[in-house]
Amino acid sequence: MTTTLDPDLTDETAPHRVVTAMRGSLPGIDLDDSPTTLAAHRTDRSAMPGDPDPLVLARPASTEQVSALLAYANAHRIPVVPQGTLTGVAGAASAISRAILLDLTAMDAIIRIDADDMIAVAQPGVIVADLAAAAADRGLFYAPDPASAQIATLGGNVATNAGGMRCIKYGVTRESVRSLEVVLADGTVLRTRPSTIKTVGGLDLTGLIVGSEGTLAVVTEITVKLLPAPGPERGVLGLFPSVAQGLSATNRIAAGPRTPARLEFMDGRCLEAIRKHIPDAPVPAEANAWALAVTDARDGAEEDLASFEKIFADAGATTVQRADSAEELEAILEARRQLQPSARGLLGGSVEGDIAVPRSALANFSARVAEVESAYDVTIALGGHVGDGNLHPIVAYTPAEGARERADEAVMTLSRLAQEMGGTMSGEHGVGLEKLPALDTEMAPEALELQRRIKTLFDPNGILNPGKKY
Amino acid sequence: MTTTLDPDLTDETAPHRVVTAMRGSLPGIDLDDSPTTLAAHRTDRSAMPGDPDPLVLARPASTEQVSALLAYANAHRIPVVPQGTLTGVAGAASAISRAILLDLTAMDAIIRIDADDMIAVAQPGVIVADLAAAAADRGLFYAPDPASAQIATLGGNVATNAGGMRCIKYGVTRESVRSLEVVLADGTVLRTRPSTIKTVGGLDLTGLIVGSEGTLAVVTEITVKLLPAPGPERGVLGLFPSVAQGLSATNRIAAGPRTPARLEFMDGRCLEAIRKHIPDAPVPAEANAWALAVTDARDGAEEDLASFEKIFADAGATTVQRADSAEELEAILEARRQLQPSARGLLGGSVEGDIAVPRSALANFSARVAEVESAYDVTIALGGHVGDGNLHPIVAYTPAEGARERADEAVMTLSRLAQEMGGTMSGEHGVGLEKLPALDTEMAPEALELQRRIKTLFDPNGILNPGKKY
Repeated sequence: MTTTLDPDLTDETAPHRVVTAMRGSLPGIDLDDSPTTLAAHRTDRSAMPGDPDPLVLARPASTEQVSALLAYANAHRIPVVPQGTLTGVAGAASAISRAILLDLTAMDAIIRIDADDMIAVAQPGVIVADLAAAAADRGLFYAPDPASAQIATLGGNVATNAGGMRCIKYGVTRESVRSLEVVLADGTVLRTRPSTIKTVGGLDLTGLIVGSEGTLAVVTEITVKLLPAPGPERGVLGLFPSVAQGLSATNRIAAGPRTPARLEFMDGRCLEAIRKHIPDAPVPAEANAWALAVTDARDGAEEDLASFEKIFADAGATTVQRADSAEELEAILEARRQLQPSARGLLGGSVEGDIAVPRSALANFSARVAEVESAYDVTIALGGHVGDGNLHPIVAYTPAEGARERADEAVMTLSRLAQEMGGTMSGEHGVGLEKLPALDTEMAPEALELQRRIKTLFDPNGILNPGKKY
Repeated sequence: MTTTLDPDLTDETAPHRVVTAMRGSLPGIDLDDSPTTLAAHRTDRSAMPGDPDPLVLARPASTEQVSALLAYANAHRIPVVPQGTLTGVAGAASAISRAILLDLTAMDAIIRIDADDMIAVAQPGVIVADLAAAAADRGLFYAPDPASAQIATLGGNVATNAGGMRCIKYGVTRESVRSLEVVLADGTVLRTRPSTIKTVGGLDLTGLIVGSEGTLAVVTEITVKLLPAPGPERGVLGLFPSVAQGLSATNRIAAGPRTPARLEFMDGRCLEAIRKHIPDAPVPAEANAWALAVTDARDGAEEDLASFEKIFADAGATTVQRADSAEELEAILEARRQLQPSARGLLGGSVEGDIAVPRSALANFSARVAEVESAYDVTIALGGHVGDGNLHPIVAYTPAEGARERADEAVMTLSRLAQEMGGTMSGEHGVGLEKLPALDTEMAPEALELQRRIKTLFDPNGILNPGKKY
């Protein structure tokens, strides 16, 4: 996807002139081109630095303003990068040269929580945890719970089809999105479908736009489904002498009759990293695999926990420990959430993967990791949402000439391994910029071409987040 | 959507010549142009008769044969109508003049049931109930359960995004489809995504094709997710003096903490029709509303039933009756399934709607029915899957000059009423041919146009089920 810039934008003095012209054409819209602001909005949390020279940060306050901005950008062939709180980890929100950064965080209203129809209607800038809290206040439950829920926006979660720890029971973000109001590249405002539970009156535009990383349309209002509040979360932690035993246990739980609300896994390297980073973390000293199964059942929670304990013990766990209180469980989950920051410090540098494979292939995948470590002289820690077959391999390296490049190659090799096993290079983080090199082996050329043509259909001038996702 | 026919196909002697040419170009593919066969495949179960003069019935035995057929049809601009067992009720599978009827029922293998990854892989011609039974044999559960499950194909369910009684708990067919193998209009074979639980490596082509009624691609292999087997189904039947009381009870259950596996409703007219049609049906004599709430919980089923009983009683039920055995419940469900055939006989003729509204609008919708009855001199029976806000109003009429047309207009008026309440003209049956007249009020012109452009992108020559869905 390439974008032809307005010729006026190609000389060095032009950006300021363009912003001045925008201010004239788009009165009332907050446009900020201060270097400090632009620098702060250059890069998301990925390792993919955005371009240093975006045009301006626009902070629309309404759907009408988003529409006016896109119509202007489309007419002048100016790229647009939708942004939230920049918590993405694949570069989808990183800046593009001479682009409008479309900051949607000012559109942060929870418009409505409807307890009868069990839906919430919100603007894209609302923080996910705030939406979940507002639902909880009404006795309801917004299920998606990515690790970034406290800091990420709902719009960003929709753009990336965010996952998290609760997907094994409740599905990914797409499965909670009922309908969207979106603005197309030319400024047209569209509702994707009625907010009824069922409709077959059209194609599934909603699902198509969810996960499209801001490349098809800009989402300005989101209707999500809410669920009855679950029971309190309680869990069982198991420690195992081997990765194979740990994965055998988690696979038995996942394929069993009692679907957990969370099913997490870490190998010995992960535990080592966390202990090093947080000396008092509730992570026992010696184990090669750590597994956590959580229930939030309103009925049968006790039976769930007993079943998890038995499966852990049968699989050879050396420790089986129940977390019955919210505090105990939260401490365990917090340690798990600290895996990424911890692993970064393991050797000095690290890169993170996001592979997913069929659950039955997890053990095979883990068995291939040692050869990747040797090939690239890196250390790999394996952890993730094994209930979904989704691992985030952390490739750690000792900073040195070429070490970072070798780590990136190791992540690519792990992605290819996952793809060969019927899996994907990205279970939940998105493609953004970071995973573009793994696209060619992810899908057939015809499938990729079809997606690029859908992108072009939605955005003929290629202004929406060009160069990302495809 | 119009299709330009090959000029050779426009004179009367041409069809036989074309079929002869097809036989030469497509050796080994079962092509049947006997008048008896074509007549039997002319019309689905809708009130929309197919065109009387399709070209040929093709019965491919493999994806390769489907690919060869589509490549041929695309090159010669011959329309293609994918067909299963013709159980659809909106005309999506009805014949088109000079078209190839693509009968996929010979591709009926269950390729694989994987209990570890909890998926089934099947060809489109498999009967839905057979797939469900094969899953049950492995202790697993295929959730979608449309009324036609015993006779409809999985491919047809995917094409129409079939609903049914269990959607309130398990969602529509789309939510059970993991990935698809499809053949595009030009014969290209494509896999929509890996069969992993999560992937964000591309756009959601799977969800886009599900429910597209054979207009975007022909589905040749389907991977569905399976769930742990639920507990035995048990239910509570409530009878109410008024529709308002019945709907108030079902809405309280639907929005409550104990999500039922089925939540069905019929008004007094429905009951009258069933009693008339099946004298010994377990449908009590005098009531203006009938509601059934079913649980299949493995844990807490007893509490579910007690909760349903209390809500029914609190809402003013005159009778609250538990169905504890599978036999009792099945008899009640069977009576419910007989509603459509029964209602047909109520006055002599009937037409059925398929509206869905937000649940909170059900009572308002039902309150408006009397004025529609007066306006069109028809009798309307209201029943359906109220847990999803999905009603199938049966518009009955005494056969007479113009009566059928008035009934059709009444259905259209009910569709518009639903749309005005934030709803849809089709909750689960599809658009096909029957609902085309209600499209313009279903969505904004821009949304409809975008969908038609997606159709054209997938099928530039307009050969796939032209004239349907959009």
